Amino acid sequence: MKGFRDFYPKEKRISNYIFNTWKEVALNYGYEEIDMPILEETKLYNKSGDEIPAQIYRFKDKSKRDVALRPETTPSIARMIKNNPNLKKPIKWFSISQCYRYEQLQKGRGREFFQFNLDYLGVESMQADAEVITTLIKIFTSFNLSENDFYIRISNRKLLNDLYKEYKIEKTKEVSRMLDKKGKIGDAEIREQLEDFGLAKEQVTALFNIFKIKNLNEIKIESKGLDELKELFSILKDYNLDKFIELDLGIMRGFDYYTSTIFEAFDKNKKFRALAGGGRYDNLADMPGVGYGLGDIVLTLFLESKDLLPKEASETEVFIIPINTLQKSIKIAEQLRKDNLNVSIDLLKRPISKNLEYADRKQIPYVIIIGEDELKQRKVKLKNMTTGEERLISVEDVSKVCRP
Amino acid sequence: MKGFRDFYPKEKRISNYIFNTWKEVALNYGYEEIDMPILEETKLYNKSGDEIPAQIYRFKDKSKRDVALRPETTPSIARMIKNNPNLKKPIKWFSISQCYRYEQLQKGRGREFFQFNLDYLGVESMQADAEVITTLIKIFTSFNLSENDFYIRISNRKLLNDLYKEYKIEKTKEVSRMLDKKGKIGDAEIREQLEDFGLAKEQVTALFNIFKIKNLNEIKIESKGLDELKELFSILKDYNLDKFIELDLGIMRGFDYYTSTIFEAFDKNKKFRALAGGGRYDNLADMPGVGYGLGDIVLTLFLESKDLLPKEASETEVFIIPINTLQKSIKIAEQLRKDNLNVSIDLLKRPISKNLEYADRKQIPYVIIIGEDELKQRKVKLKNMTTGEERLISVEDVSKVCRP
Repeated sequence: MKGFRDFYPKEKRISNYIFNTWKEVALNYGYEEIDMPILEETKLYNKSGDEIPAQIYRFKDKSKRDVALRPETTPSIARMIKNNPNLKKPIKWFSISQCYRYEQLQKGRGREFFQFNLDYLGVESMQADAEVITTLIKIFTSFNLSENDFYIRISNRKLLNDLYKEYKIEKTKEVSRMLDKKGKIGDAEIREQLEDFGLAKEQVTALFNIFKIKNLNEIKIESKGLDELKELFSILKDYNLDKFIELDLGIMRGFDYYTSTIFEAFDKNKKFRALAGGGRYDNLADMPGVGYGLGDIVLTLFLESKDLLPKEASETEVFIIPINTLQKSIKIAEQLRKDNLNVSIDLLKRPISKNLEYADRKQIPYVIIIGEDELKQRKVKLKNMTTGEERLISVEDVSKVCRP
Repeated sequence: MKGFRDFYPKEKRISNYIFNTWKEVALNYGYEEIDMPILEETKLYNKSGDEIPAQIYRFKDKSKRDVALRPETTPSIARMIKNNPNLKKPIKWFSISQCYRYEQLQKGRGREFFQFNLDYLGVESMQADAEVITTLIKIFTSFNLSENDFYIRISNRKLLNDLYKEYKIEKTKEVSRMLDKKGKIGDAEIREQLEDFGLAKEQVTALFNIFKIKNLNEIKIESKGLDELKELFSILKDYNLDKFIELDLGIMRGFDYYTSTIFEAFDKNKKFRALAGGGRYDNLADMPGVGYGLGDIVLTLFLESKDLLPKEASETEVFIIPINTLQKSIKIAEQLRKDNLNVSIDLLKRPISKNLEYADRKQIPYVIIIGEDELKQRKVKLKNMTTGEERLISVEDVSKVCRP
């Protein structure tokens, strides 16, 4: 079906590379892996904003329950924490979960995607926000991306709300939703929509000026959100991460549960939609939390555009071609497998040339040819598929050569 | 929801141990990992027998397509192969995929489970069946299970059909379905059902005698299935795997697509339902295939009953407790992370005792305490949480001690 992906070995290898990189960074920062059901009760997504609930794959199960294929993972995490009051704080979790959204199909947007989620719960301090954002930056740099390739835009919901108040803007939810279209539709159109909605020209201009602010010191109001942002930027500067971050009060995030810090990661060329997004949600899980989601589809396209995806290579290290020696060759294969080599063996009794072609296409680095003559000498013929070099060696020496 | 599992870090660690073992064996035998959508068109499961289609989570999506949460993976694999005629034979694939079945809830039966699937396609010879069964045995032995713990029952559909013919039994599909209840309900009841269905007493007795056969030489009819089984048993004997296998013409497998070899893995104490099941399906994927599925739920219960699950241990190797040195301690944490240590750090500014208790509960093996005095000496206090031993060492030496 359109919007759903089959992962053949080549695509799965790339997918595993991405998952492993996510996982390594999360473990490196002391986060523990969790997993949760793909199917949840639909009501769990009440706080997921307006866009997501409309895109949910939902249906009635055989007990007439209204169930949903999860469109995101944060609500499940909050549920897991509420269900288990004995968990020791802080809670540092990550997960790699497939999510489903019935979206309009376009480049970088499927109907399923894998989402890496990382969450830090139980800590109010901006130090947690800083650590969480640091892991996101570390993930990108682990893919060999630099500050020339990506950046993180950061804002704060409390500050934005205080600014709305300052300019006497009401119905902030609706206003935010219109502003969220910034970059997708033209500024003039957004201005028009805001004015049609009842905002004065001066209010609209004030809003657009806010989004141009690149330095927190330009903001002169009293605001807890401003203090939080200042602290967060100061910590990240202290970690030498300021080159990766940018103040942008124009980012909105579609989720109603964020209460403070919000952030989004983008490619510097703005060729792709957001790579990742997250924020602080202090009222969702009976304790303060901050985290983000990072999907695999846009990231893979982005890495591909930078030629940063690993080249195809087989996990199979040795391919055995028996020449009328199948039973004995299988025993040699077993011996090599015990030496921890990944070994495949031809069972089709094809000619050598066909088998070499197969091994070459599969990018298997070594081929072993076992004929009766070799067996008599208790040796095998080992061919290095990269150099073409062939040598006669004893079975015991194969693993030393193939995995030096 | 009942029947769906949340994986907290402890459960996820066990799950990862099981997945990694599956994966290692599959790679060791030269299989490549694939993945496929959880959502498929419902009609894909036409050949999945009678039981599974009734258990499918199915619904209409927003385009009114009849879609299903996959109840098994073999049909998706067949679809992937049909969709990609350029794949080089043989095809050796494995996958670890979550599957969904709306079943009656009971011990060892949830409504979702992870299934390891391993398939060998493009080879007609029983050598492929033997390799596939070998990987299944290797998986069990990799979990430290022995021939005293599990065994594989093997049969062959062609042979069973020839035996049905020999005894003039018709409506073989219905008969097989009744026989499939063997072990779940009493033999007397099955005999009665078969007689009610129209079988003569002698036919029923003949059937029950067939199921007692433990040696292929006792079967005296002409049958391709018999030849195949003899070859398969002879190959597995040659691999010294005969201690793990048993002839059992009474196993049925609920799937219509099997055409030859069928097999199921059981615990020797018959405490659990089948651990794994598979067989040869020569008409499903435009090419011959043989494979099996192995679920995680029964396997986990089985390993638990044998005390073979790994003990809880954190992937986090070091927990840092800063004493009024947070900013500097975070930089030390970063340095240790660059040395590839998995490091967490307290951001809650809790007293040492609270923090030690937390690290202990999380089973983190090392704690580092960083006060101003230590910093002045450019050292940290390292505590081994297992032995209780404390020492003052330089940051550069931490990784040598913690991961020797």
